Amino acid sequence: MADGAAARSDEDVRLFGFATRATFAAALSWIGDRAKLLAPETIPVCCAAHRVLAAPILGPIDRPDADRAARDGYAVRAADTEAADSYTPLLLRVTDGSASQLGDATIIASGAAMPAGTDAVLPFEMAVHQNGAQQDGALAVTAQAAPGAWVRRRGSEIQAGREVLAAGRRLRTGDPAFLAALGVPEVDVVRRPTVAVVTIGPKSGDADLLGPTLLARIGRDGGCGTRASIRGELQAMLADAAAGADLVIMAGRSGCGADDDAAPALRAAGGTLALHGIALQPGESTGLGQLGRAMVLLLPGDPPSCLAAYEMLAARAIRRSGGVAEPDLVPMVPLDRKIVSAIGVVELVFVRLRDRRATPLAADSLAPLHADGYVVVPETSEGFAAGSLVPVYPFDTAGWTTLP
Amino acid sequence: MADGAAARSDEDVRLFGFATRATFAAALSWIGDRAKLLAPETIPVCCAAHRVLAAPILGPIDRPDADRAARDGYAVRAADTEAADSYTPLLLRVTDGSASQLGDATIIASGAAMPAGTDAVLPFEMAVHQNGAQQDGALAVTAQAAPGAWVRRRGSEIQAGREVLAAGRRLRTGDPAFLAALGVPEVDVVRRPTVAVVTIGPKSGDADLLGPTLLARIGRDGGCGTRASIRGELQAMLADAAAGADLVIMAGRSGCGADDDAAPALRAAGGTLALHGIALQPGESTGLGQLGRAMVLLLPGDPPSCLAAYEMLAARAIRRSGGVAEPDLVPMVPLDRKIVSAIGVVELVFVRLRDRRATPLAADSLAPLHADGYVVVPETSEGFAAGSLVPVYPFDTAGWTTLP
Repeated sequence: MADGAAARSDEDVRLFGFATRATFAAALSWIGDRAKLLAPETIPVCCAAHRVLAAPILGPIDRPDADRAARDGYAVRAADTEAADSYTPLLLRVTDGSASQLGDATIIASGAAMPAGTDAVLPFEMAVHQNGAQQDGALAVTAQAAPGAWVRRRGSEIQAGREVLAAGRRLRTGDPAFLAALGVPEVDVVRRPTVAVVTIGPKSGDADLLGPTLLARIGRDGGCGTRASIRGELQAMLADAAAGADLVIMAGRSGCGADDDAAPALRAAGGTLALHGIALQPGESTGLGQLGRAMVLLLPGDPPSCLAAYEMLAARAIRRSGGVAEPDLVPMVPLDRKIVSAIGVVELVFVRLRDRRATPLAADSLAPLHADGYVVVPETSEGFAAGSLVPVYPFDTAGWTTLP
Repeated sequence: MADGAAARSDEDVRLFGFATRATFAAALSWIGDRAKLLAPETIPVCCAAHRVLAAPILGPIDRPDADRAARDGYAVRAADTEAADSYTPLLLRVTDGSASQLGDATIIASGAAMPAGTDAVLPFEMAVHQNGAQQDGALAVTAQAAPGAWVRRRGSEIQAGREVLAAGRRLRTGDPAFLAALGVPEVDVVRRPTVAVVTIGPKSGDADLLGPTLLARIGRDGGCGTRASIRGELQAMLADAAAGADLVIMAGRSGCGADDDAAPALRAAGGTLALHGIALQPGESTGLGQLGRAMVLLLPGDPPSCLAAYEMLAARAIRRSGGVAEPDLVPMVPLDRKIVSAIGVVELVFVRLRDRRATPLAADSLAPLHADGYVVVPETSEGFAAGSLVPVYPFDTAGWTTLP
């Protein structure tokens, strides 16, 4: 089926329609073959929020920088306290810590470096001063200290040269400040794919609401979006867009109506169209091609179809190029109403989330701009019964972070 | 138990410890009583990403602004086409649309306003020109058009004065551009709570990694964080912080060691401490109080305890004040290893997420800064068996937004 679609990709579908459609798997595989991880770049750590690490961050220092006391008390050699208990206290000599000899104990504050030769902190409660004076007195130790007790070992939190954050991590909001505080000045991150968005506004002259929505999604997926509304000649706009971008998303005129001139314009600009027409609902008129070094996605212009094709195909190309990992967790949510779908087509159904239930939305033209996420019906399925638990892919996780 | 703790809250716990601890429910209820939704403010829509709507957004216009064709074809009166089929075509007169009379059809482009009196678009395929000319000719209609067919009704997407986005919505990244495109210049949003963070760096002099982490979390929870490291006198710093803030978070010196002077400093500054010592693990030395008009949270200084108390208590106070709704969805994830917990204490266990499994982390001092989220063991539970499915609260949803 994919081969059939590929063979037809240089034909004009206008007023004829799609004789065959590529499978969704064939479209994904085409994208997978072409969307390559971009090269790394080095940037100041302060600008690195939400960027993807191209290399692991190694500890720049040992932290703590020395063995340090984790509690106020006496720094001792653990072996010197062996067998001490409240019935048979052992005597140690309290010193100022300038030297630590066998049988010495040194008053130490939590956080201070352990004197050489000591390996444990004895809390105040586990020893009794013999003469009231804290310095240079005799100390009766009433409990045994284990080696390492109440000591934070050098490098126990961070070791110089050892991984602190793994390559591939998309840095969280707090990570840059964390790394800066550790003394990391710059980081190697994957270059963000630049995505040129060319949208055709509604024919009625209403404001284009799809453009802003696409730009926000591109940012979410780690891309750097730029936008132009179609004003002039399509072929020239496509060529301009492709010249400076890793990916061109053109929204509108991808179908097989008389004025659907996106595919002919791509060919006229010197580009190729590998697939046109995909077994994806909504979004079936999507085309995948190339113009110069840019991947070109021709998406339908009506919002549900465009956003479905964006989520299922464009988002994957962007995330793959930018090294943004696929998520580990997808919440399972019960459906309010049944979803009916055709075999042979991958179907995306927009949903609203309320009270931990997902309500499928009618596919009117603005619904997906307000939807909370979507459910995917695989091509082998006829849909889901009401009440069944289905994976929901949220559009935007703002306000998602959770409290029990 | 809460009463017991409250009764002791004006006492000095240093070197005595917490004789009783407030229940977690009592602490939550104290916060719930005091963290009131802040007043709304009006801001330009361009600055409103991630802000919480204080009032619904109403449609500023009807969209479409008129009944408009959704397809190229002929604008007709549906009743005029009644009973037409390919065997018994009906004849209509093609006009230029300047007037629409009984029996007229007008060529119309998708997106154009429907001529007065027409209520359906007949696709070109459903009619045959009798004389080749498209204008002023006779049209043989071969199929019946239903009323409203291929017409986008005025206001079908957005109605002037009708809700577009509901009050309480935390605006998503793309919402401001969407609203701006609709012609909404300003929005009423809930004022963000200002949160003064006062952190005591590690006693060893190592860089403070907790401060940046708290600031990022505060932003995530809809607060506006400011930060000072403790340099001078604690009492004066607390007073300064409280003067300009809705909430003061002081991290460090909340415990019952000899130098734990946060609680005495709060009292000396003229504040009150309502609860000190909570059945929460880690984080049991947390104190809740008031200084002037600011709520004051005294949190422990070691990172796991501080972040546990932040997530379980401070985050709720901030979200409640800022109107950030609690999440609808919490992913259920199988545990890699068992979690053992004590009855009577709410326990927070930091976890790492890998391969759709949650691994509990050892509570060493930097683990929570890298953890992906946490699991909460209620006070009535002794923990969870390995392999059991538990709700995981993710710390940060960057990189979470999902692809199937």
